Amino acid sequence: MSQTIERVRNGVDTEQLYGTLDLLDQTPSLGAFTFRATNRWLGGAHNRSTIKSFYGAGQEDTTRVEEFVVDAGEPAILLGTDTGPNPAEYLLHALAACLTTTLVYVAAARKVQLTEVESTLEGEMDVRGALGVSDEVRNGFSRIRVDFKVKGDATPEKLQEIVERAQQRSAVFDMVSNGVPVEVGLVA
Amino acid sequence: MSQTIERVRNGVDTEQLYGTLDLLDQTPSLGAFTFRATNRWLGGAHNRSTIKSFYGAGQEDTTRVEEFVVDAGEPAILLGTDTGPNPAEYLLHALAACLTTTLVYVAAARKVQLTEVESTLEGEMDVRGALGVSDEVRNGFSRIRVDFKVKGDATPEKLQEIVERAQQRSAVFDMVSNGVPVEVGLVA
Repeated sequence: MSQTIERVRNGVDTEQLYGTLDLLDQTPSLGAFTFRATNRWLGGAHNRSTIKSFYGAGQEDTTRVEEFVVDAGEPAILLGTDTGPNPAEYLLHALAACLTTTLVYVAAARKVQLTEVESTLEGEMDVRGALGVSDEVRNGFSRIRVDFKVKGDATPEKLQEIVERAQQRSAVFDMVSNGVPVEVGLVA
Repeated sequence: MSQTIERVRNGVDTEQLYGTLDLLDQTPSLGAFTFRATNRWLGGAHNRSTIKSFYGAGQEDTTRVEEFVVDAGEPAILLGTDTGPNPAEYLLHALAACLTTTLVYVAAARKVQLTEVESTLEGEMDVRGALGVSDEVRNGFSRIRVDFKVKGDATPEKLQEIVERAQQRSAVFDMVSNGVPVEVGLVA
């Protein structure tokens, strides 16, 4: 019983976590993943992505049973009808979600039991860029601010360390901070 | 009747679009927007963002009546229970959604009637980075590939131009390609 309690920390199976890390250390090629999304326009600012298949650990995944469906939109002032969060808001969500999961995994590995993780994000954008009104401002956010509130059985210093480690390891934090080469093509 | 048909193209109110562009040209300060998301950890790799309020056009928005709720997760092989798309998949969705909406707005402004816009996205990641197994690979995607299929009443060359213009103006394409300064803090 106490073994079970120790094994699963913060909802993370730490035995599986350590096993995964060992396996990737021994067989680096298993680390190659490909994630995918398919998007379809539904009219105006409304479009929808379906997300299911991915490749990882040497094979196509067969464990996901249902596809995820997520809708995007724009508010009225940006010419939409609020059919979903807008793309820039989804980017904030992706960033929050990745930092949070990374933080939770780091805490699990460091034997810190968390009780609460919340974050609020703000991104500032001059929409004259994306709307083509000005070439002097960028299209995207000029800056993003993330504020975490984290509670658990550790000192404030230890929690601060975990937040910093999450930034050092988060996939989306890396991508949003540093950029990724994106290739766009039009197929017939 | 024919006036209504011309005014709304691709689901975009072009009269409102031109009005917005004129207004932003005359009063640049109205272009300053702040978008927000609040995220809460629900256990393991499961967390949830709520998205509603934003600032734009000189004031806090009052038009959105309901908040959007989006859940993130990880598949079993990445230690989750598939409670939603994972953060990297949400980033692909944000990119697809933004390129698509930008493309649709550009086409509306250029008097091209679209009938279909679909995109498939793939991002390649060596998860040894994010899992802390290797310092020699980055945490995020090494590259992202986007393939569009676009149909409408225009030549292939014109559709290609619109896809290229969408890349030049998309907020999320800019952010994902070029990066954004992200500041992360821990509040008491």
